[in-house]
Amino acid sequence: MAGEFEFIEWLRSQQRASAFVPVPAGDDLAVLRWDGRHLLLVGADQVLDGAHFDAAVHTPRQIGRKVMNRNLSDCAAMACLPAAAVATVALPRGLGVNYARELYLGLREAADPFDCPIVGGDTGSWDGKLAFSVTILGRSAGVTPIRRCGAKPGDGVYVTGPLGGSILGRHMTFEPRVMLARELAQAGGITAMIDLSDGLSRDLRHICRESGVGAVIDARAVPVHDDARHVAMEEGVEVADRQQRALDHAMNDGEDYELLFTGKPAATQPGIVRVGSIVEEQGLWLDDNGRRPLQARGWEHAI
Amino acid sequence: MAGEFEFIEWLRSQQRASAFVPVPAGDDLAVLRWDGRHLLLVGADQVLDGAHFDAAVHTPRQIGRKVMNRNLSDCAAMACLPAAAVATVALPRGLGVNYARELYLGLREAADPFDCPIVGGDTGSWDGKLAFSVTILGRSAGVTPIRRCGAKPGDGVYVTGPLGGSILGRHMTFEPRVMLARELAQAGGITAMIDLSDGLSRDLRHICRESGVGAVIDARAVPVHDDARHVAMEEGVEVADRQQRALDHAMNDGEDYELLFTGKPAATQPGIVRVGSIVEEQGLWLDDNGRRPLQARGWEHAI
Repeated sequence: MAGEFEFIEWLRSQQRASAFVPVPAGDDLAVLRWDGRHLLLVGADQVLDGAHFDAAVHTPRQIGRKVMNRNLSDCAAMACLPAAAVATVALPRGLGVNYARELYLGLREAADPFDCPIVGGDTGSWDGKLAFSVTILGRSAGVTPIRRCGAKPGDGVYVTGPLGGSILGRHMTFEPRVMLARELAQAGGITAMIDLSDGLSRDLRHICRESGVGAVIDARAVPVHDDARHVAMEEGVEVADRQQRALDHAMNDGEDYELLFTGKPAATQPGIVRVGSIVEEQGLWLDDNGRRPLQARGWEHAI
Repeated sequence: MAGEFEFIEWLRSQQRASAFVPVPAGDDLAVLRWDGRHLLLVGADQVLDGAHFDAAVHTPRQIGRKVMNRNLSDCAAMACLPAAAVATVALPRGLGVNYARELYLGLREAADPFDCPIVGGDTGSWDGKLAFSVTILGRSAGVTPIRRCGAKPGDGVYVTGPLGGSILGRHMTFEPRVMLARELAQAGGITAMIDLSDGLSRDLRHICRESGVGAVIDARAVPVHDDARHVAMEEGVEVADRQQRALDHAMNDGEDYELLFTGKPAATQPGIVRVGSIVEEQGLWLDDNGRRPLQARGWEHAI
């Protein structure tokens, strides 16, 4: 059985140089040079065995990729560029150093395309299940961060791709929309943005609450992913009801990691779909041959 | 059973204003204004049930305090000031929202004296044990960070307080030496520093390796904590051997969270003790009526 310090030595041998990071991992803290012209953004997201992945099914490489991509997707939601990350991992005892290395290489696979170095963290082993936490630092790099609180009545509501059924596999393999978010924000006209982790019905509610507005979703406009239709079919729903069920999955499943944004975007791109409008009256409605209140049924952890 | 979003609402109501943080938690990422004159330091440390605390024994307030204090102690080791923190927690299902609040209030108890706001994070519940991870951002604030790699032959080796037996309780209740570290670093003459989390024998090895030097510890000079003597007594060691055993605990137990530093410090303070010297030849020795090689026996997670 290998030790923590041998693993740390290996981690250090993996480090890449970065203009931002004069002192990488190896001390108690890494040291970053931060240009005062950039805003510094920071947040953290974790993945837990049995909740966000299944260690009996998914490879450590996939798990590492997912936790990093969740954090990169938060950068996308704010239209910032990933700058650096740190990670802590709680390793079930006896998984071995190769498993730990694969987790790290999964982080790297996701972070490297964005030149986002992993500059530190902590590895602990325990008599518990795998928990993997990443903190991301982002930099504004010339684009004002897009928040959740700017949506205004008359704005359109947009998503960047088809939704629903991510449980069939996309929740592990999605690509964070970092560059797309930057392009949209740079073009202008975006008033609020979030990434779709909890599901359209719930994430749109976050935007509406923060902005003090309401929204109407046009049921026919919501892009339903083939995976949502597959799930509806596998659930044995009658053919006549399948379309409705697939729409339910698109509205509520979550873990799509597409962007949800509002505004009057100055530029658009293939795949971006307007799914509704922001209204003054607070609340959420689904327009589906008549308007009815939309329940938030997306993902929420019970505590 | 309360939901994640109700808890997040409560968290947001707890937030304190900070000149650094124009956009606190509530968006996908917090936004910080970072003065380019400050170096930005970053690192993460976690606590795991059964490894760093015992959820059946310790209160959530204590657990929150400990994970934050471990991170603040990393700031001390680098002589920087805590600036902001983010946290992720994996909560055993059903612990309840009050427990989660107490964890958070523990973080706050430790962080508030340093005006270190908690600006974001993630809460997830799972069928697993409690894992709690904090990432700390530090700022150099006019003091060059002290690294592990600067020790030179002829330097003294110092610790800031008595060591050993922290398992009796101090590992949960220690005070991070942030202000002391700043004062020492500002006065000058410190060449390398680390906080004693893994134990003197192991943490001094980290400094020696990074600096390419060796060290000799004077056994009679090591300040042995009363707790180390109590542990030796409780272990039923013969009276004649108790002193030796207590010294072993002082050298190896870890989780003291005192500072270990090298150099020719320009200022000293009550409680700071010189325990040895840096030498050119790489290796560690204990001078105890004759020099013998010192094994590193401090804490290391097996992977």
